[in-house]
Amino acid sequence: MKGKIALEEHWESPDFPATGSHNFTDDEYFSAVQTRLQEFEKRIEDMDRNGIQTSILSLTQPGIEGITDPDRAVKLAKQMNDHAAEFFVCKHPDRFKAFASVPLQDPEEAAKELERAVNELGFVGALVNGYSNIGDEHTAQYLDEPQVRPFWEKAAQLQVPVYLHPRIPLPHQQRIYEGYEGLLGSAWGFGFETATHAIRLMLSGLFDEYPDLTVILGHLGEGLPFTLPRVEHRLRHQRPETHGNHKKAPTEYLRNNFYLTTSGVFRTQALIDTLLEVGSDRILFSVDYPYETMEEISSWFDQCPISETDRYKIGTENAAKLFQFNQ
Amino acid sequence: MKGKIALEEHWESPDFPATGSHNFTDDEYFSAVQTRLQEFEKRIEDMDRNGIQTSILSLTQPGIEGITDPDRAVKLAKQMNDHAAEFFVCKHPDRFKAFASVPLQDPEEAAKELERAVNELGFVGALVNGYSNIGDEHTAQYLDEPQVRPFWEKAAQLQVPVYLHPRIPLPHQQRIYEGYEGLLGSAWGFGFETATHAIRLMLSGLFDEYPDLTVILGHLGEGLPFTLPRVEHRLRHQRPETHGNHKKAPTEYLRNNFYLTTSGVFRTQALIDTLLEVGSDRILFSVDYPYETMEEISSWFDQCPISETDRYKIGTENAAKLFQFNQ
Amino acid sequence: MKGKIALEEHWESPDFPATGSHNFTDDEYFSAVQTRLQEFEKRIEDMDRNGIQTSILSLTQPGIEGITDPDRAVKLAKQMNDHAAEFFVCKHPDRFKAFASVPLQDPEEAAKELERAVNELGFVGALVNGYSNIGDEHTAQYLDEPQVRPFWEKAAQLQVPVYLHPRIPLPHQQRIYEGYEGLLGSAWGFGFETATHAIRLMLSGLFDEYPDLTVILGHLGEGLPFTLPRVEHRLRHQRPETHGNHKKAPTEYLRNNFYLTTSGVFRTQALIDTLLEVGSDRILFSVDYPYETMEEISSWFDQCPISETDRYKIGTENAAKLFQFNQ
Amino acid sequence: MKGKIALEEHWESPDFPATGSHNFTDDEYFSAVQTRLQEFEKRIEDMDRNGIQTSILSLTQPGIEGITDPDRAVKLAKQMNDHAAEFFVCKHPDRFKAFASVPLQDPEEAAKELERAVNELGFVGALVNGYSNIGDEHTAQYLDEPQVRPFWEKAAQLQVPVYLHPRIPLPHQQRIYEGYEGLLGSAWGFGFETATHAIRLMLSGLFDEYPDLTVILGHLGEGLPFTLPRVEHRLRHQRPETHGNHKKAPTEYLRNNFYLTTSGVFRTQALIDTLLEVGSDRILFSVDYPYETMEEISSWFDQCPISETDRYKIGTENAAKLFQFNQ
Repeated sequence: MKGKIALEEHWESPDFPATGSHNFTDDEYFSAVQTRLQEFEKRIEDMDRNGIQTSILSLTQPGIEGITDPDRAVKLAKQMNDHAAEFFVCKHPDRFKAFASVPLQDPEEAAKELERAVNELGFVGALVNGYSNIGDEHTAQYLDEPQVRPFWEKAAQLQVPVYLHPRIPLPHQQRIYEGYEGLLGSAWGFGFETATHAIRLMLSGLFDEYPDLTVILGHLGEGLPFTLPRVEHRLRHQRPETHGNHKKAPTEYLRNNFYLTTSGVFRTQALIDTLLEVGSDRILFSVDYPYETMEEISSWFDQCPISETDRYKIGTENAAKLFQFNQ
Repeated sequence: MKGKIALEEHWESPDFPATGSHNFTDDEYFSAVQTRLQEFEKRIEDMDRNGIQTSILSLTQPGIEGITDPDRAVKLAKQMNDHAAEFFVCKHPDRFKAFASVPLQDPEEAAKELERAVNELGFVGALVNGYSNIGDEHTAQYLDEPQVRPFWEKAAQLQVPVYLHPRIPLPHQQRIYEGYEGLLGSAWGFGFETATHAIRLMLSGLFDEYPDLTVILGHLGEGLPFTLPRVEHRLRHQRPETHGNHKKAPTEYLRNNFYLTTSGVFRTQALIDTLLEVGSDRILFSVDYPYETMEEISSWFDQCPISETDRYKIGTENAAKLFQFNQ
Repeated sequence: MKGKIALEEHWESPDFPATGSHNFTDDEYFSAVQTRLQEFEKRIEDMDRNGIQTSILSLTQPGIEGITDPDRAVKLAKQMNDHAAEFFVCKHPDRFKAFASVPLQDPEEAAKELERAVNELGFVGALVNGYSNIGDEHTAQYLDEPQVRPFWEKAAQLQVPVYLHPRIPLPHQQRIYEGYEGLLGSAWGFGFETATHAIRLMLSGLFDEYPDLTVILGHLGEGLPFTLPRVEHRLRHQRPETHGNHKKAPTEYLRNNFYLTTSGVFRTQALIDTLLEVGSDRILFSVDYPYETMEEISSWFDQCPISETDRYKIGTENAAKLFQFNQ
Repeated sequence: MKGKIALEEHWESPDFPATGSHNFTDDEYFSAVQTRLQEFEKRIEDMDRNGIQTSILSLTQPGIEGITDPDRAVKLAKQMNDHAAEFFVCKHPDRFKAFASVPLQDPEEAAKELERAVNELGFVGALVNGYSNIGDEHTAQYLDEPQVRPFWEKAAQLQVPVYLHPRIPLPHQQRIYEGYEGLLGSAWGFGFETATHAIRLMLSGLFDEYPDLTVILGHLGEGLPFTLPRVEHRLRHQRPETHGNHKKAPTEYLRNNFYLTTSGVFRTQALIDTLLEVGSDRILFSVDYPYETMEEISSWFDQCPISETDRYKIGTENAAKLFQFNQ
């Protein structure tokens, strides 16, 4: 399939090692990843070979969110966005778009930087790598917390989506991984951390306040198409004050305020479950390059047993509508 | 459908408040649950009305596992098993079977108690409520830890399955639930806690040592049919020493050493995903009574769009084979 | 679910016994059907009870298509359309719309009558009951035959869809039903007859000539979501002149020129197959009243395991777009 | 996947052009088919390349069934079975098994020949190419007709399955294909003809008389997983005498007396529908060689999104049990 748009495609600048710790990862794999993060020629070749017309780029995780000093976060976010604009988007405007990095350690500044990135640099939204550290690596701010609302207000006003990308669980939550540290990252810990974060957003009432706000989740919604209906079912018996201020059922937000991408997943069974839970208008193709190969995700996607109508929607049409691209 | 066998059906003795904390739960709901946990006449009426021939009973969570004093755990496990035998199984041997409570705080004693329960009381296996506290509520022992092997050796020798039931995450893992404490329990926290526990078992090499060992998971495998293929995919790039001593792929253990039950789930989309991941021979009907109603789970199950062949397998035949019941 | 639109809903006038032969059908059933065909009050009560806002009515099969004398067909088609307008649509314009009957025995006249029905009576398209008899009951004209093109040209020009409804196989095709005459009708014969008719349309090149032409099939596409991919696969090895003048693959027409309705079907397994072959934008709710009950089809549809997004599309939104209704 | 067993694999002897007419088929394709039908070395190479351990061979259609003279049919059936034994099975007993050809023009002789083939030649059942011509090509005997019962009695007694293979519709049923003769064969006509034949068997009461009788259908049951539930639903309103003497619901026979193979189909959507209607114990891998290539069917099957448990069942285990092979 030609003309695909991919949304969870990462980059890194030589000036800032955004990937943080990778203690558990195979060195050979990680070093190849890092090389790929920083260049764009092989990336375009890969895109050409795999029918990907457009990659929407984002600073790799934990990126700005892992910086404990708010001032440094503000400064670095701008610098990184400028770098992405200069070295990727401007060089190949027909192939690269970008999500802004935002310094959520200071939500007002995050809102300003989002506005600048969208209006001045032509970025198409923001990508947030989970919670933001503030002060130290043990302290985290989640996106549903009240002080973050100015950022969401700006996203709603600009009508741009926010991609909620995973990051590693907080240190004091790592006890359950003892002896299996390899599970902490994208293999397992990322998914639970991010799914919980997304549930917090739903329950917080954010989407009642901004009904048109759009959040994007990778990895087919971090399992939520399978797990969220049970959450909803069980919350019936929990006292209301223990699960936020939401006015609607969680699955209603999932269907109406979220898009789910195929990043890092090529499992037809899970895709069918997702299709039967949220419908094909809310699924988007993505790779998670360079952590994943375009070959694996694309060759699966191009042939997986869905209708050609849905393949075109998921591969191209939904993203083109969401971002108002001319296709 | 008549003749169903249900496996995640709980009881409690008036002598021991096994349910522990329920701070987040609606009081009216919880009080009805507690009444139902302790009696059996309404339970049998419910079973009759919903086509459930046999309930396999287990002490409700966290039960013995939440007792921080090992000696008390050993003593109480015996007492509870005797109670279940006397007040449930012996009174209605054609309607009730039981899983043993086992004091895993002392794995040798747990092995002994399992043997006694199976050989002397006619119990059909054990149900374990997640990690066991030892000493205090902050200290947990997971079932993959080396000192627990004598228990598994006994289960393998007796050829009985072990049901891994959820319990609430450890205190220091609760930060991510701040402001949403209602998510801590069965709504969300239970599932991640238990899925992680199950992955630890797979990665530990336990099933390479005891290839015929059988573990049962509730709630359609706590999401693993959807999430485990990605874990497996990502572990490719993790250094081997960071993910245990397993010899096979995680999904291979899921298909060959696990059974997954429908307890607390009545979502056809998730059932189809499960069917396409593990096959119908490995799925078992269950309710999670009295936390769930037999009506909701049964009326869904009896009509959900699977073949009648698979309905009979899941509802009756698979469990009858696993436990060698005469049907 | 409220607000559903149903498209394969039949009526009959006391002046013309449009149902023809019903030798094989249970008398009690058929007599109840006939009563329901001719009245509208119970119909509206049924619609209210089952969340159906709008029924698009059509003269029951074989209707005009079974009239062997072209002149009589022309006259009767007009008379029946006037009757539908007067006794149904005008009385309850907010609840009833109509498909025109068209005298295809004279395709030019069929085109004219379609135009009159749409422009003067406000009808929303035509419903055609399979082949048309010409001269006698052994002679049939299929809709792909060259002389029928003026009718299609008019439908394309008016931008209205044509519902291809089943009728019984021709007499000389009935040998295979010997001893099982009950299979001839909707139980089996209708489906094959109509699926073949639809394949002929695809292969004829009709949709290459009129790329925006829309045909609607009932009964989840008469099995084509399951069977058409094999037809397409096997035609690779047939000589081109033996399968029409089509320029595209048959499944491409199915996805782009057809809508498939749920009339008379309430089988989730088949719906999922259909969803994975044509996508939810091309499926429409329908009952096939009064041959089917609104209760059976609606209660299944309202709860079948698809996303609420797709339920709304199939139940209401797709039809509202197709017919440009204000919802 | 290694070790697959394939069941709809055809051969032809140079002494008897069993394929009959092939007017509509591309000549180059057909000539390659015919070469492949008669040799076995390339066939074994293909099997090796595609992980097929065993092919169960059958005389290609219409074979014996198309012979209008009963005496010639009896004589030729024996001759063909001897040929299959000598030139295929005996030469590679570890790779080839065979279904007997049976002269159903004389059902008593068919029973005798089945017995001889099973007991003396080691054949594993029979394959029947649809109706049998008797006297001329316009006269057909279907397998549910009373005079055929001695053949079924013998199959039941020998406990061997009968594969019901398609053949072209009878001449007087070909009107609907006018102008589209390429549809008459495997592209479309075969499927309807065979599905109807199978429904006749179900409705005739045959499986009430011989409850353990097993019939195998190719092409994922010729569409019946999708279409049969509607047949069953509609028969409610047909007078009983119009649909045979069956005691059970048609879908019950489909699940309990039939196996469905993947011959000629590689469509995951249809396989999932089949899995959800009959369960994985009743599906068998097959190719339909040399009309289909082993590459296309195998490469699809080896990777289609079903559980590995079901893949092994469908690919190997179900057939091994049915035919009591040592695997």
